[in-house]
Amino acid sequence: MSQTTTRSATAPITVSPSGFHVLQTVPLPKGTPEYEAAIASILAEFAAKVPKELYIPEAIAENPPKNVTGVPRESGILTEQELDITEKYDAVSLAEAIANRKFTAVAVATAFAKRAIIAHQVTCCLTEWFMDEAIERAKALDDHLERTGKTVGPLHGVPISVKEHMPLAGHYTAAGYLDTRVKSEKDCQMMAILRAAGAVFYCKTAQPQGIMHLESVSQYGRVLNPYNINLSAGGSTGGEAALLAMRGSVLGVGTDIGGSVRGPAGFCGIYGYKATSYMLPQKDFLPNGFAAELNVLCSTGPMCLTMRDMDLFTKVLLDAKPHLSDPRLIPLPWTGLSGPKPASPLKIGFYMNDGSIVPQPPVMRALEWARSQLEKSSNFKVTTFAPYQAARAIQNIRKAYWPDGQQAVESHLKKTGEPMFPLTKWIIRDAQYDELPASGVLAQRVERDRFRCEFAEHWTGQDVDVVIGPVYVGPATEHDTAFHWNYTAFWNYVDYPGVVFPTPVKAGKKGEESYADDTPLSKEDEHVRELWQKGDFEGAPINLQIVARKYYDNELFSALAAVKDVLQLA
Amino acid sequence: MSQTTTRSATAPITVSPSGFHVLQTVPLPKGTPEYEAAIASILAEFAAKVPKELYIPEAIAENPPKNVTGVPRESGILTEQELDITEKYDAVSLAEAIANRKFTAVAVATAFAKRAIIAHQVTCCLTEWFMDEAIERAKALDDHLERTGKTVGPLHGVPISVKEHMPLAGHYTAAGYLDTRVKSEKDCQMMAILRAAGAVFYCKTAQPQGIMHLESVSQYGRVLNPYNINLSAGGSTGGEAALLAMRGSVLGVGTDIGGSVRGPAGFCGIYGYKATSYMLPQKDFLPNGFAAELNVLCSTGPMCLTMRDMDLFTKVLLDAKPHLSDPRLIPLPWTGLSGPKPASPLKIGFYMNDGSIVPQPPVMRALEWARSQLEKSSNFKVTTFAPYQAARAIQNIRKAYWPDGQQAVESHLKKTGEPMFPLTKWIIRDAQYDELPASGVLAQRVERDRFRCEFAEHWTGQDVDVVIGPVYVGPATEHDTAFHWNYTAFWNYVDYPGVVFPTPVKAGKKGEESYADDTPLSKEDEHVRELWQKGDFEGAPINLQIVARKYYDNELFSALAAVKDVLQLA
Repeated sequence: MSQTTTRSATAPITVSPSGFHVLQTVPLPKGTPEYEAAIASILAEFAAKVPKELYIPEAIAENPPKNVTGVPRESGILTEQELDITEKYDAVSLAEAIANRKFTAVAVATAFAKRAIIAHQVTCCLTEWFMDEAIERAKALDDHLERTGKTVGPLHGVPISVKEHMPLAGHYTAAGYLDTRVKSEKDCQMMAILRAAGAVFYCKTAQPQGIMHLESVSQYGRVLNPYNINLSAGGSTGGEAALLAMRGSVLGVGTDIGGSVRGPAGFCGIYGYKATSYMLPQKDFLPNGFAAELNVLCSTGPMCLTMRDMDLFTKVLLDAKPHLSDPRLIPLPWTGLSGPKPASPLKIGFYMNDGSIVPQPPVMRALEWARSQLEKSSNFKVTTFAPYQAARAIQNIRKAYWPDGQQAVESHLKKTGEPMFPLTKWIIRDAQYDELPASGVLAQRVERDRFRCEFAEHWTGQDVDVVIGPVYVGPATEHDTAFHWNYTAFWNYVDYPGVVFPTPVKAGKKGEESYADDTPLSKEDEHVRELWQKGDFEGAPINLQIVARKYYDNELFSALAAVKDVLQLA
Repeated sequence: MSQTTTRSATAPITVSPSGFHVLQTVPLPKGTPEYEAAIASILAEFAAKVPKELYIPEAIAENPPKNVTGVPRESGILTEQELDITEKYDAVSLAEAIANRKFTAVAVATAFAKRAIIAHQVTCCLTEWFMDEAIERAKALDDHLERTGKTVGPLHGVPISVKEHMPLAGHYTAAGYLDTRVKSEKDCQMMAILRAAGAVFYCKTAQPQGIMHLESVSQYGRVLNPYNINLSAGGSTGGEAALLAMRGSVLGVGTDIGGSVRGPAGFCGIYGYKATSYMLPQKDFLPNGFAAELNVLCSTGPMCLTMRDMDLFTKVLLDAKPHLSDPRLIPLPWTGLSGPKPASPLKIGFYMNDGSIVPQPPVMRALEWARSQLEKSSNFKVTTFAPYQAARAIQNIRKAYWPDGQQAVESHLKKTGEPMFPLTKWIIRDAQYDELPASGVLAQRVERDRFRCEFAEHWTGQDVDVVIGPVYVGPATEHDTAFHWNYTAFWNYVDYPGVVFPTPVKAGKKGEESYADDTPLSKEDEHVRELWQKGDFEGAPINLQIVARKYYDNELFSALAAVKDVLQLA
């Protein structure tokens, strides 16, 4: 993909080795020549696997529309059945269709693998693509069904896309730096469970440097937002989000320690569920550990196109009793969307702003839309949720991510000559020290727990079952500007589960909307207002986020079931 | 209590200011004169609160029997009703008797407060005693019942003893060093819940220096084992254990990060439950944090005389939904002893030794007794549980306790001139470094989680529901020799819940029993055999420990209900 870069005043950057084009819109920083050579060789290896008949037409590659979601259909590469398979089904209905022999697993794997590589050419969402392996696996599943009349499990033939850092046997994993890239010998626990349930793996998806940006930009490229390629697809699970929005996947997996599932899902208009920590298996996701987790545990969860797919994904994982192999996992029984109805009225607090940053206008519009929808029904008691010390939480978590200081990042970069990306500089700007001593880590822990207890009391005082608020301070950001993690990272700091869901709201044309009030709440708010003035967010989808108390993942899903129709959820 | 110390060849040491005697058997190390003066003043303040009519007779004080459990009855201080109240009831039946107005709360508080101060004079089990406050509170409860016909809660009038470090409004708390001693302004969360449920507080109980020995020896004195004053009552919740064995309490509370509930409960022949971490409220137990908890979370739980009291205690706490104020707590619903019967046969693994240290002969006898009892019934499938790398776990946890190194201890001692006790030297001998950096803490975390996952797989491979094993390498230890924490700390390292329960077995006279096999498994085993040869453990009760998987606290209690009759449990 890299090697030669071309750019004109009007056309976006495209990157092309041997004629395989991957659209890019903003250049990347360069590393040492040795590093660049290593990256080029990885990208060439990727490109070599793609048959020419899956290259998108030159006309589209050279003059792509701003919204590329129509490219798979327009490219002429997919058959009618492949368009059907990839556009009209979610994981639940795909699994049914395969089990009922409406489609073979091979047909499904083929359709998604093809669509994924098309999606990659316009969004740069993949780090690996292995259609051959997927078809071989699908064939084995078809044979099994033919022979036994039975599926191997509830995901029989369902394609699942996987974030780069999650080990999948025979494929590369990396913790966001080139020096950490290795071929995995075996599946991590989650992938083993999904595979045993019948999943078909066909690609790995892009994440940012250090897996610690809310944009997904690494030396392999920058993931573009399918609804507007001048915007970010979000991060750190941005590859998944873009791929899903392109319908190159029906079900993907992310991790979230500051918004990495919810942010990109929100930027790309899909569903994303960040579970409470240790609800879902993450064993071997980062086998050498991640110092941030001394303070804030990472969570994981599905990214997909319907609520019931989040439910299916979670149920499949928990039915496998993963806590028997990883005792960190809490064996809370899963009831999900089928759980008992919440008490009526369901008490919903609206988090209109966090007291620190007022969301940009389209986000406010989405909040007001959702609020007005819910207020129409006597099933809901809608109140305004008072914010609680968000600035303190954000200041704390920014440091809490780096008990090992900036040297942790620098030592990875040094090993291969990797350049530091602008958003990496941003995220470590409060960690300009070497490692903390144990007592410093302890102080962070004590303050975190103090905050968590205070916030729990605050929540209880507000008398709400769930809170609906923004996903991010605005719509999908322009590139390299995903600075303010307030609305996602706060919930990591308190470790509450959250689901982000699409709304009918989209960002309009530049200049169409403005803030209701001109007084910023803080310097950060001022910054967010500047970004709004400068930016053009046209077409960006607006999601909202619903959260529940720590460990109330089932109650969160019960609440989602209760608001489904009113909020027009899928 | 301190100030003058007398010792004869035959009589034990007694310590007496103003005629108030507290039995001691081995002298304590001395601190600086300033430190000794501070301690003397604390002890004098304690003594001044004790009315002379509650002093035990000089004859007993000067020539105490080795087994002092009969002293409360022999002292002549308690009325027949007070002996009845303190000897014939557990918390469940006491609560019933008070609710049914068989006894007033005042009568019950008086009986336990009197018996506690008797117990203290022969075991040194208390750090504070406040009979007046208890009677005042009990009177208010009696008035309430009289006036409303209703109890305030399920513990209406039940006296509860509290470990020194747990904040109780108006009383002193300390984290095991003089410099940390402060008067608490308010109850910690657990005590607030217990108080709201009707509990009457009347004393705080002794713990060792740093709260980190399996014996309870601090500058206030050394807690003696009621069954044999030449032995330790265990630690760190040794004051509770001795008090309960003396029937000076019916229900107490401990904390356990290496055996501090289970060890002393085992040494003193009572019940003790160490919950899985974050099952039971510990908010503000140590408000400034404890670096060991970066690696191994502390647990808490009841110490008492019957299984149903453990169940009551747990139910009262969890019914209060403590997770709403402390979101670290996991809202697993409590079923306890009333939970569904376990599948039959219940699969019980016997942990005859851990592969590192063979238990001393009376412990082996208790294990064999329990095993033979269970093997008689077809309700149980009894197997031998293969040990898993206990030496590695113990080596790891010894370091895991001290991410902040020896300086953490030394800086406490320096502040007041407190001497370092021999068992403190022992517990920090593997921490002869200053603080670890964050990456060192992370390495400990990664290794801990690796071990936990390995052990979980091992457990699953052994196909057992619960494991029954030793509490300690032997019976209650001789003073200053509680060295080897293998059989308790292992379960902290993996964070499995455990209950210790009495057996009919007691240690016999010196020389009556010997090891079945003369080959030690390790250097530590050799050491344990030496201690056995030298020691005289006559009369020490032998408990066993039953453990279940992490978070399987309910299943543990279901298993206890299932084995109750066969193992003659109360």
